[in-house]
Amino acid sequence: MSEGKAGGAAKRAVVLLSGGLDSATVLAIAKSRGYTSYALTVRYGQRHASEVEAARRVAKSLGVAAHRVIDLDLKGFGGSALVGDGDVPLDRSDDEIGEGGIPVTYVPARNTVFLSLALAWAEALGGADIFIGVNALDYSGYPDCRPEFIEAFRTLARLATKIGVTGEYAVDVQAPLVAMTKAEIIRTAATLGVDLGQTHSCYQPDDAGRACGRCDSCRLRKKGFADAGVPDPTTYAPGAG
Amino acid sequence: MSEGKAGGAAKRAVVLLSGGLDSATVLAIAKSRGYTSYALTVRYGQRHASEVEAARRVAKSLGVAAHRVIDLDLKGFGGSALVGDGDVPLDRSDDEIGEGGIPVTYVPARNTVFLSLALAWAEALGGADIFIGVNALDYSGYPDCRPEFIEAFRTLARLATKIGVTGEYAVDVQAPLVAMTKAEIIRTAATLGVDLGQTHSCYQPDDAGRACGRCDSCRLRKKGFADAGVPDPTTYAPGAG
Repeated sequence: MSEGKAGGAAKRAVVLLSGGLDSATVLAIAKSRGYTSYALTVRYGQRHASEVEAARRVAKSLGVAAHRVIDLDLKGFGGSALVGDGDVPLDRSDDEIGEGGIPVTYVPARNTVFLSLALAWAEALGGADIFIGVNALDYSGYPDCRPEFIEAFRTLARLATKIGVTGEYAVDVQAPLVAMTKAEIIRTAATLGVDLGQTHSCYQPDDAGRACGRCDSCRLRKKGFADAGVPDPTTYAPGAG
Repeated sequence: MSEGKAGGAAKRAVVLLSGGLDSATVLAIAKSRGYTSYALTVRYGQRHASEVEAARRVAKSLGVAAHRVIDLDLKGFGGSALVGDGDVPLDRSDDEIGEGGIPVTYVPARNTVFLSLALAWAEALGGADIFIGVNALDYSGYPDCRPEFIEAFRTLARLATKIGVTGEYAVDVQAPLVAMTKAEIIRTAATLGVDLGQTHSCYQPDDAGRACGRCDSCRLRKKGFADAGVPDPTTYAPGAG
């Protein structure tokens, strides 16, 4: 359809890079598929700013054409424990994490906002595919991590852009982790040589940026390493669960 | 479907308010339909910051439950004359404005980004409809001003949100100006008592915030007042076309 897609070497990807395990793996996947990557990190007022530092480490270590960190205050809208409304739940069992619908750590419309920003960059670049590390299985039931959401955004991306309307480039949205378990993601990352010790997943790290080991995100991550049979390189705070 | 929609008094709307003529009219329309409005203005690095001041005036004068101005640097992505890449075209004839595809003043994926932010607020409010002043006829051919784009976003909004997934509230996206001419919009505003002198449309105002009278936006606006037979309250710079 476009030179970028046919040409191989010129393929560009805007990769949403949070600094977590999933998005680092996605960046490595984009690279393994021959894309030149443009990493996009959004600093949206989340409690765990350590994520942004992790994103910088990962971008540098995996290699990107550019890394852009955008400030956007989603805190002002409220509605999520991740941006300061209410407490992050701790010490929930796997069953508790898996059930009970949408957790309080969900940030309203976050992935829609992130994908929109990625789309703006993809279009400004003259055409790029978008990679996002959403995951429908282990992601605690966030609505904007489901395949049908990604499909709806793919449709939107083609209607919303100049490059889509002119036929110059039909932006694809790729979510390579969508059907993987956390263990499968970790094994993929290991195969691709990603240093997962550089990534950050904890919702509530200590002042030194060390993981609490107790929030849902830590527990899913720990279980993922155990299930994958891969040593867990995470630095946990003293006394972490 | 929801208490908000059935109840009348409790209907909430997030209204994208740029400070231009169109969005001011949309805010008045939302009000006339019985909505309590939450106005959202995005300061995205546009050349014409006078728009933000206009948005504050309009929000105050029409009355809103809250007005939020969000900073978001779309300039960093490049790709539009409106955020500093290249010159804004001046003195184009009506035919030139109407033809020739997508103009250089198009900002990549702007309305997708704006609608996503509105969606985040709508969800954090526990449910609200979204109003946007896009216009397919007089809007110089921007892809993200077409009805099919709005329809795709409506679909996305229902899949992307917790309130959509739980059935608590199906966010509607209303674009009441989409099929109106500029003259019809101006007549609607006049009927609803909107003070259009408070609004700002110019892409390239002078330091005092006065309109140039020569950019596409000024020319469409002037022609709209003329066609509507409504006196033009715009303050033009000395020597404006």
